[in-house]
Amino acid sequence: VFKKNKMTKPTLTLVKIGGNIIDNPVALSAFLNDFSKIEGAKVLVHGGGKSATKLAEQMGLQPQFIDGRRITDAPMLDIAVMTYAGLINKNIVAQLQALQTNAMGLSGADGTMIVSEKRKNENIDFGWVGDVIAVNGELLTTLIEHKITPVFCAITHDGNGQLLNTNADTIASELAITLSHYYQVKLIYCFEKQGVLSDAEDDDSVILNINSEDYQTLKNKGSIHSGMIPKLDNCFYALSNGVEKVCIGLPEIILNQNTVYTTITI
Amino acid sequence: VFKKNKMTKPTLTLVKIGGNIIDNPVALSAFLNDFSKIEGAKVLVHGGGKSATKLAEQMGLQPQFIDGRRITDAPMLDIAVMTYAGLINKNIVAQLQALQTNAMGLSGADGTMIVSEKRKNENIDFGWVGDVIAVNGELLTTLIEHKITPVFCAITHDGNGQLLNTNADTIASELAITLSHYYQVKLIYCFEKQGVLSDAEDDDSVILNINSEDYQTLKNKGSIHSGMIPKLDNCFYALSNGVEKVCIGLPEIILNQNTVYTTITI
Repeated sequence: VFKKNKMTKPTLTLVKIGGNIIDNPVALSAFLNDFSKIEGAKVLVHGGGKSATKLAEQMGLQPQFIDGRRITDAPMLDIAVMTYAGLINKNIVAQLQALQTNAMGLSGADGTMIVSEKRKNENIDFGWVGDVIAVNGELLTTLIEHKITPVFCAITHDGNGQLLNTNADTIASELAITLSHYYQVKLIYCFEKQGVLSDAEDDDSVILNINSEDYQTLKNKGSIHSGMIPKLDNCFYALSNGVEKVCIGLPEIILNQNTVYTTITI
Repeated sequence: VFKKNKMTKPTLTLVKIGGNIIDNPVALSAFLNDFSKIEGAKVLVHGGGKSATKLAEQMGLQPQFIDGRRITDAPMLDIAVMTYAGLINKNIVAQLQALQTNAMGLSGADGTMIVSEKRKNENIDFGWVGDVIAVNGELLTTLIEHKITPVFCAITHDGNGQLLNTNADTIASELAITLSHYYQVKLIYCFEKQGVLSDAEDDDSVILNINSEDYQTLKNKGSIHSGMIPKLDNCFYALSNGVEKVCIGLPEIILNQNTVYTTITI
């Protein structure tokens, strides 16, 4: 792929939101209002929140586990597709339209935007879970050039007709990496904390800057919470592959640069 | 809108499929295989089939009726969005991708493709049901020019954040009319019969050609089945507004031109 000179690339903001916003209509509405005000090209990636679990319960389905790991069996995949690609995605898109943001909801199957492969594991069959192998950067940038704001749910496909449940944090970093060929990409992970904490018990212990060396030290000390590890791995992976800036914090940080949050650097 | 000279317009095939295909995986797969072989620009519109009713039952929801008319209350709208825009739409898209057709699933909210307004009725509040008021022809043709095959479900939005359940036959005719500014559009309604029947009890009584005069005569005689009336109204509406050709028949007619079917003419 032809990489334009960094200085000539326009900027793009890619924001990932998770369950804490998705499950709270007031927080979601406030977030979308802020998101609609981000200037320039932007992309949204959303997780699923509790809606899939709730729907599964309503339908009397039991979540499946093997060795404590959650399995996406066929009924659970259908529920993920219904809630993530259907209910959540389309309601976010409709709300953004009301805010004059021309959003377009996409799964990885649409325009073959994100191709993944069923996760291989010698010990456990995780079911219909996919790991990203390709992003259709050409079509994605074409949409963005036409003033579309893509809104991705965490469903991808394998190119052979199979939909796959995929980690939303990983989708965000993979999209950011592909888009960095065309844009200076700022990747923002929004979650329920102000940032990466040096003490998981103390919400005020936000680390303002964390580089890969700090990360190793904090991991070795055991200060970094287990759920934080894959998230930070995604951040460093994005930075090592062309993404300009990566930060983590509360949803408010997407507009208000005075808020406390964590910036990740290599 | 600038209307190109008819002879210079490329052709486009718009196919609408309903529940009889959606609810039958074997029929759907055969149809999609045929659909993928249609040459040139194409668009698919799909109905919902029985999946929404089935999901409602599984969730213990009762369909709501007023004066025998089905009402789309808020829980039923959520179910329609989940099944039509989620489960059905994304599975069709994934299957078309496997057939080398670069499909993109769309609701009317995506790219504000179809704006509708909540149905007004002095006597009955039909709930979250919308009638089409605008189609975003510019963005739709841009996608098609980029070799995308749009796949529409029957969910639209009002532009103010509200999703609306919308008749799939009407979506097909409205899309066909807008696309006829840019293309010579062939609109094909696929359903469970070989075509319009002169005797609803006799499947062999297919009328090969029906014009508006015939239609009036058949309606006056009571030969045309009640469910057929809105479908044929959509056909004549499309033909009166720029659509080149309209036909109705079994799904097989999209490829095999030797099959019996009904052609509608003004």
